Amino acid sequence: MNAKISRYLQDARPPTPCLIVDVDAVEEGYIQLRDLLPEARIFYAVKANPLAPVVKRLNKLGSSFDTASRQEIDLCLKQGAKADRISFGNTIKKAADIAYAYEKGVRLFAFDSEAELRKLAQAAPGAKVFCRVLMECEGAEWPLSRKFGCSPKMAADLMVQARELGLDAYGLSFHVGSQQTDLSQWDTALGRVSSLFSILRERDVDLRMVNLGGGFPAQYRSDVPPLEAYARTVMAAVRRHFGNRIPELIVEPGRSLVGDAGVIQTEVVLISDKGDGDGRRWVYLDIGKFSGLAETMDESIKYRLRTPHDGGRTGPVVLAGPTCDSADILYEKTRYELPLDLAIGDKVEILTTGAYTCTYSSVGFNGFEPLKTICI
Amino acid sequence: MNAKISRYLQDARPPTPCLIVDVDAVEEGYIQLRDLLPEARIFYAVKANPLAPVVKRLNKLGSSFDTASRQEIDLCLKQGAKADRISFGNTIKKAADIAYAYEKGVRLFAFDSEAELRKLAQAAPGAKVFCRVLMECEGAEWPLSRKFGCSPKMAADLMVQARELGLDAYGLSFHVGSQQTDLSQWDTALGRVSSLFSILRERDVDLRMVNLGGGFPAQYRSDVPPLEAYARTVMAAVRRHFGNRIPELIVEPGRSLVGDAGVIQTEVVLISDKGDGDGRRWVYLDIGKFSGLAETMDESIKYRLRTPHDGGRTGPVVLAGPTCDSADILYEKTRYELPLDLAIGDKVEILTTGAYTCTYSSVGFNGFEPLKTICI
Repeated sequence: MNAKISRYLQDARPPTPCLIVDVDAVEEGYIQLRDLLPEARIFYAVKANPLAPVVKRLNKLGSSFDTASRQEIDLCLKQGAKADRISFGNTIKKAADIAYAYEKGVRLFAFDSEAELRKLAQAAPGAKVFCRVLMECEGAEWPLSRKFGCSPKMAADLMVQARELGLDAYGLSFHVGSQQTDLSQWDTALGRVSSLFSILRERDVDLRMVNLGGGFPAQYRSDVPPLEAYARTVMAAVRRHFGNRIPELIVEPGRSLVGDAGVIQTEVVLISDKGDGDGRRWVYLDIGKFSGLAETMDESIKYRLRTPHDGGRTGPVVLAGPTCDSADILYEKTRYELPLDLAIGDKVEILTTGAYTCTYSSVGFNGFEPLKTICI
Repeated sequence: MNAKISRYLQDARPPTPCLIVDVDAVEEGYIQLRDLLPEARIFYAVKANPLAPVVKRLNKLGSSFDTASRQEIDLCLKQGAKADRISFGNTIKKAADIAYAYEKGVRLFAFDSEAELRKLAQAAPGAKVFCRVLMECEGAEWPLSRKFGCSPKMAADLMVQARELGLDAYGLSFHVGSQQTDLSQWDTALGRVSSLFSILRERDVDLRMVNLGGGFPAQYRSDVPPLEAYARTVMAAVRRHFGNRIPELIVEPGRSLVGDAGVIQTEVVLISDKGDGDGRRWVYLDIGKFSGLAETMDESIKYRLRTPHDGGRTGPVVLAGPTCDSADILYEKTRYELPLDLAIGDKVEILTTGAYTCTYSSVGFNGFEPLKTICI
C-alpha cells in the first residue's frame, strides 16, 4: 500500500468512509506512461477521477484531456488546460453541448454514428473528428459491450461522409475494454484499424491519427502484466500494421493513472452470521455499491483489502455495504477471506480505488453522504 | 400518465432530465393503503424517496417513518415527525448512530444478529426491538437476497437474549421482496412468523408486533395485482395464522406509495445503428443507470415509457444512458419497442419513477449533474 497514504491515515485519522488520493503517485504514473510510450499523446480520461488537484497536476505535466461532458470541459479549462488539448470523447452528445465545446475552442470530437456526425458538422464546423470502431473485447474485467463504436465498414463510410460534410476526417479510435489483460487484443484491433486506413486511402481520405483508447490496468486482485509489457505490445502492433507510415497516436488512460494512487478507508459496521448453515461471516462496511464502489457491480472489479489483522488466520466472508438495499453486496460469489480476528469498528483499507469511485457515489441513497475525498 | 404532472411538463418545460413528483398522488396512495389496511400502522420507507415535501405531507397525514440512517432520522424530525413515530429499520448501524437516534427519542430498532443486538442493549437501553427473519422471496422483481434477516431459529434465540439484555422484545419483521407479485409469499412468511410467536411464548417471551415489511408494488411494465388484493391476502393470512390473537401490525411501504407519483422526463440525445446487422436502433437518453435509473441494474425494473409519437409504428430498440460507461445500458436483453418516428431531441417520459430514483443518482459521474427533482 502507498506509504504516503498510509502515513496520512495514521496521522490525520479522517472520518470514514473516505478516499485518499496521492497526487504525486498520479504524477509518477503519468511520467512512467509518457516515458514508455513517447510516440503517443496522453489524453487523461477525466471521468476516471475528476478531482481538481489531479487535473491540475496532469495539466502542469503537459497532459491532454479526454472529456465526457460540458462539465468536464469546464473543469479542465478551469484547471488551466488549453482547449486545443481537450478532446470531447463521448460519442453521445447533445448538439448544444457540442456547440458549447466548440465555442470554448475544442476542436477534437469523437463520434460513431451518422446522426452524431451531422450534429458535429452543424455545431462544430471544420473540427477534427475521429470515429470509434466496434471491437470485441475479450479479456477485459470491465468489458465495453456494444454501446460504443460502429462496424468497420460503417466507420469507413462515415469518414468519407465526414469529409463531404466539411469536417476534418482525422482518425479512428477503438477501445479494447477497461482493465484489459489479454495483450493480443491490441494487435487484433490495430490490424483492423490499419486496413481501414488503407481502404480509406483508396477513397481519398487520408487519416492521420489512431486513438488507442485506454485499457491499461490498475492493480486489483489478479495479477496484471506490467505497463512495460502493454507499451511494448502496443508499439510492436503499431509497427507491424503501419510499417513506416506510423500515424499520430493518442492514448486515453484513466484507471492506470489514478487507480493505484487512491485508497478508500472504511469501517466495519457489523459482522454477523445468518444461522443458515452458510459458514461465511457477513462483514458489513460503511461503504457500498451506492457510495463509491459501483464497479463491484456483478462483482466485476475485485479490490484488494487491508485490515489491522493481516497475517493472522482467515476465514471466508460475504462483503456488503451499509444500505437497506439488498443489491448492495460487494462480493458474495467471489471468494474473499478476511482475518478471523476482524472486529466491529476496525478500519479496512480498499486499495486501488483512485479510479471510478468517488463520482459514482450516490447523492444520498439511504441518507448516506457521498464519499468524501482528500487529495494529498 | 398522471394528469397533473403531464400538465406541469407542458406548461413549465423544465430542463431535462428531471423527476416530477406529485405530492397529492402520494397522499392519495397513503389514504388508499390506510383504508385498505386499517389494522396496520404505516411506516413510510423514507429511502424510497426522501424529498422533504413528501415526508412533510405524509407526516401531516399521520404516517410513521421507517428510516435507514441518522440523516433520514434528522430529515423526518425536521419535517415535524415525532420520534415515537420513527423506526430505525436498518439492521446495519454504527453504535454511534444508534446512540444518536436514542438521544433524539427513537425507541424502535431493527436487528438481525447478535452483535447488533449487543450494540442496541448498550446504546439504546430498554428500547423496543424487532428481529428480521430471513425469508425466501420468490416472485419479487427486485429480490432481497440474503443480506438481511437471520434464520427463524436464530431469531427465536436472539429474542430471548434481547429480553435478557434488558431490551423490550417487541416483535418480528420480514420482507417478501420489493415489487412482490406472488401473493402466496405473505402466507408462507406469516405462517413462519406465527410459529415463532408460539415457540417464544413457550420460552416466556410474549411478542406483540409483526412488521410485514414492504413489497407492495408500483405499476411498471408488467401487470400487478391491485392493492386491494394485497391487502386482502395479507389480512387473510394474518387471521389464518394468528386467529383471535392478532398482534400489532406494521407495514413499510415505499415503492407503492411514491412510485406511481413520479415521472422522469428525459430527452433523446442520439439514435443510431451500429452497422453490425442487429436491426435494433440504439436510443440514447440524457438519463441513465448512474443518474437515477439504478434499478435497471440487470434490467430488473422495467419502466413504462411515453413518447410524442405513441400510437405510430414501432420497432425494437436498445436503450442506453449518456455516459461513457458501457455498463450504462438500460435495456438490451429486455425487448423494448419505440415509435419509428422517434427523433433526436424528442422528450420521453419514464413513468412510475417516484421511488428509488433521485437518491441513487451519482454526484457527478462523467460530469453529469445529479437528477433534478421538482415536487408539485
